[in-house]
Amino acid sequence: MRLYDCKTAPSPRRVRIFLAEKGIEIETTQIDLWGGEQFSEAFRKVNPDCVVPALELDDGSCISEVVAICQYIEEMHPEPALMGVTTEERAHVSMWNAKVEQQGLWAMADAFRNSAKGLQGHAVTGPDAYPQIPELAERGRARVLQFFKRLDTQLADHEFVAGDSYSMADITALVLVDFARWIKILAPDDLADLARWHGEVSKRPSAAA
Amino acid sequence: MRLYDCKTAPSPRRVRIFLAEKGIEIETTQIDLWGGEQFSEAFRKVNPDCVVPALELDDGSCISEVVAICQYIEEMHPEPALMGVTTEERAHVSMWNAKVEQQGLWAMADAFRNSAKGLQGHAVTGPDAYPQIPELAERGRARVLQFFKRLDTQLADHEFVAGDSYSMADITALVLVDFARWIKILAPDDLADLARWHGEVSKRPSAAA
Repeated sequence: MRLYDCKTAPSPRRVRIFLAEKGIEIETTQIDLWGGEQFSEAFRKVNPDCVVPALELDDGSCISEVVAICQYIEEMHPEPALMGVTTEERAHVSMWNAKVEQQGLWAMADAFRNSAKGLQGHAVTGPDAYPQIPELAERGRARVLQFFKRLDTQLADHEFVAGDSYSMADITALVLVDFARWIKILAPDDLADLARWHGEVSKRPSAAA
Repeated sequence: MRLYDCKTAPSPRRVRIFLAEKGIEIETTQIDLWGGEQFSEAFRKVNPDCVVPALELDDGSCISEVVAICQYIEEMHPEPALMGVTTEERAHVSMWNAKVEQQGLWAMADAFRNSAKGLQGHAVTGPDAYPQIPELAERGRARVLQFFKRLDTQLADHEFVAGDSYSMADITALVLVDFARWIKILAPDDLADLARWHGEVSKRPSAAA
């Protein structure tokens, strides 16, 4: 297996943390997203969508999309479980991971990609050119802040995002909070449960991945 | 189990088709999305995100998000498998389902929700008010048309979206193509493989769900 990665990008960090929690090391190739390497002929053969992460399997085929990559790793290396153990737990992890993606991570991507100077003409990930929409950047910021409140409410009653155990949903949420901070979308100080959770998951060695 | 559904909306149709393929019938409650019933106090107790589908389990807890609902049903009723059988197949179904969602379904939602007269102030699903962004509606239309080309390319080499077997990725793509047509985003006639596939999956009895 080989992971196509970019050390400074949020989506591949989700896979890096997932692997670190499992204690797995795999060969990695860095793709220089800021230099446009994802659009090279060589990388298009790996993933025609021109995004990382991508996981090349030993048969040469390639899995992209974080949720699919993590599911593959989870099935190959079940311990420790990061996607739930029982059917109900697995459904809750999947649900919360999807909520964090759709209400948090994609909104953050809207905020970032529609405002960053270096992404003019690349407001959507992938090979196609789309101009930035400044109103969408603003909406994205507002939605991320709104979602932080929902996460705080959930974390008031649960130790982790999807319940009693650390899971993939925590990884997605950690990457959201950290990258949002990097683009200056800061969780308000009064969200004490979100802050408590963020402090805890940030202390795990995997957070350095 | 009880499914909270809306007969005319695309997301719950994904679950209805999934259930029909499994041959499962469950109790269903229709939520009148166009009348705003999703924002009622009663439904907020079921799903505070104010969206359908939502699956209420026998213990009273609720699973939302299509991918989590389908995963739960797949684990409870494994035959016929709609999310792949081997680890590799399961990763491919998960990957293609995510691609169809992100590049197709969410782009279509951008097109619809940012232009429909009845959705002014509700440009994002959920309880929060966001104004429509007409430029985003246009971008959404362009992205859906672009994605139809990618689907056509994939279907030139594969009978179904994720490979040799009908799967959840076909269900997501069928709902995309049909709802896009309803909002007048039509797949160009020269996408012959997409048309062949659409004809085949539309003939399955589940497509009427």
